[in-house]
Amino acid sequence: MQVSDVVLDSHKDGKIKVMNTSPITSMDVLGKVYTPGVAQVCSLIHRQPEMADKYTYIPYSVAIVTDGTAILGLGDIGPVAGMPVMEGKAALLQQLVGISGIPILLNTKDPDEIVETVKRIEPTFGGIQLEDIASPRCFYIEERLANELSIPVMHDDQKGTAVVVLAALINASKITKIDLKRAKIGLIGLGASGLFIGRFIYQYTENPVMGTARTKASINRHVQAGGIPSTFNDIMGQCEIVIATTGVGGLIEPSSVREGQIIFALTNPYPEITPETAIKAGASMAFDGRSVNNLLGFPGIWRGTLDTKSSKINYEMLKAAALAIASIADEGMCVPIAIDPNVHIAVAHAVAKAAVESGVARRNRES
Amino acid sequence: MQVSDVVLDSHKDGKIKVMNTSPITSMDVLGKVYTPGVAQVCSLIHRQPEMADKYTYIPYSVAIVTDGTAILGLGDIGPVAGMPVMEGKAALLQQLVGISGIPILLNTKDPDEIVETVKRIEPTFGGIQLEDIASPRCFYIEERLANELSIPVMHDDQKGTAVVVLAALINASKITKIDLKRAKIGLIGLGASGLFIGRFIYQYTENPVMGTARTKASINRHVQAGGIPSTFNDIMGQCEIVIATTGVGGLIEPSSVREGQIIFALTNPYPEITPETAIKAGASMAFDGRSVNNLLGFPGIWRGTLDTKSSKINYEMLKAAALAIASIADEGMCVPIAIDPNVHIAVAHAVAKAAVESGVARRNRES
Repeated sequence: MQVSDVVLDSHKDGKIKVMNTSPITSMDVLGKVYTPGVAQVCSLIHRQPEMADKYTYIPYSVAIVTDGTAILGLGDIGPVAGMPVMEGKAALLQQLVGISGIPILLNTKDPDEIVETVKRIEPTFGGIQLEDIASPRCFYIEERLANELSIPVMHDDQKGTAVVVLAALINASKITKIDLKRAKIGLIGLGASGLFIGRFIYQYTENPVMGTARTKASINRHVQAGGIPSTFNDIMGQCEIVIATTGVGGLIEPSSVREGQIIFALTNPYPEITPETAIKAGASMAFDGRSVNNLLGFPGIWRGTLDTKSSKINYEMLKAAALAIASIADEGMCVPIAIDPNVHIAVAHAVAKAAVESGVARRNRES
Repeated sequence: MQVSDVVLDSHKDGKIKVMNTSPITSMDVLGKVYTPGVAQVCSLIHRQPEMADKYTYIPYSVAIVTDGTAILGLGDIGPVAGMPVMEGKAALLQQLVGISGIPILLNTKDPDEIVETVKRIEPTFGGIQLEDIASPRCFYIEERLANELSIPVMHDDQKGTAVVVLAALINASKITKIDLKRAKIGLIGLGASGLFIGRFIYQYTENPVMGTARTKASINRHVQAGGIPSTFNDIMGQCEIVIATTGVGGLIEPSSVREGQIIFALTNPYPEITPETAIKAGASMAFDGRSVNNLLGFPGIWRGTLDTKSSKINYEMLKAAALAIASIADEGMCVPIAIDPNVHIAVAHAVAKAAVESGVARRNRES
């Protein structure tokens, strides 16, 4: 693969930096932010631990943790090769919602060691975003961390993606007049993203979702979550809505697209079928990972979660995020523009409200 | 202790942020720094791992790792209460030498768990700065990490402090015409800082250093490193140079100061004796942790180390740093102004040169 110079240039020396928030250019300032002044602040936090929320950057910092086993659709290329993705997420967290994202690249793929390591560095952060960790290990890791940490944890490939898919689906079904509660919805690929998309749609619609995958274990997990086992051909042939998260670019032939189908082909960087090809083959609407981008979800979800000092990111908060994204899209569009700041503010507000109402918020954001 | 509002204000919301290095304000830019463009950069690093030096922020990022057991002179107040110090170091690394410092607060005090945790997050960073970890555990932790990591490790309380003390000592001895190779030099307190200051002065002068401490184990360590066991009274009564790193503010009574003595009272935030009091009591020169501040050392040491991609920070590099700091001080002064950028550039150059000459450099910095 040829790498274009213009892309490489935009990654030169990395895409993030840890910056001091105010200049330290006099000995007077130094005496306040560093010794001897800093000792007063340390002592204050020691006496009143909640002061760490006010006088450190911890409450608005999120670790972006990966073992490098499922980087985009590229697979297990290792955590260092995955760093450009982690830095990208961090850059977007700051740009869009003013949160410090801190990439953490892990030297281990052992699920228990990953859990243990994250637990040991927990005090550093306000939240943990798991990123590009292969399934099925990611399920175990996220579940254990969600139970054992006191700060919120989110595996973005599951939760972030599902939120944005549901948002797009809500709008797409309105436009095409498909009833989500009765439509046949099919998942091709039941990895981290696919499985949770199915579970999330089922929770929202109460309409069980068909699913197929290469391994029996994945299909079993789907069935356990209320899904219906199916096949590639049945899904392509029967479903009004198809959601592909296979990691295999070009998997869907135009000939298998059904007239009027809504197709999500979400593998990055090469989708199972390009939206243009799908539309030409008869689909009524088609999306790839660029339009249905989890970037629409995670920044506002984190902002709303951290603003309310929530201990968890629960279904109500994710649902609120999806509805907020759906409602802010322009008339006739399924999703809004990902870098529009209004989207992320709307998501943050909706998530914060849901956190308070569902009882996981520890506070309302002080101004 | 009353905390002054002006100090608190300067710590509001923390002192660092992870920033995106260029704005992401169009979908076009997004497509380069994020999907689909980012996949090209990930693949490139996967094929040519050394490209991570060029296209990630890893090579100029340093973890600032603490377990919170020896925060300034405040003791074991925990890692979160120590965060203002870690953020201060990070803020200074960026302000002075353009390095990203990333605080890592550990939930464990177990030396083996600390080593294991740092090893697991090693791929994230270009170097590891250990910070405010109590002795004697810090010796074991630093030694194991230095041996087992492929990136450089420095315990700032040992190395950074010793470098600055030696720099000040070189100038102070010139001004007062004391011969460092023959003078009686005494250490009061043999914790992380004291022990290594003694070892470093001995390496540089070949003049064994007297030392006293509260525990037999500390004195044994000092003797093993070539030091001479002594007592508080003998040191105060006999030594031309006294270096106190006890953690006990106000320990040295004016009456015990000897005429013409050079005194380093380095405990933060309250020194063993204030420089003013020491001078009034007859000292020829006196320093506290504010004037002999390890801030003079660590930024330039890291910059020189990372510029040369050195695998270690060795004695030659630390000596070069000390000599650079000493030589850049204004005529008649023992140390330069800590926030003068020229100091840190001079230290970086000297350290880089020493790294190349001593064979630990893996490259010269490309422009």
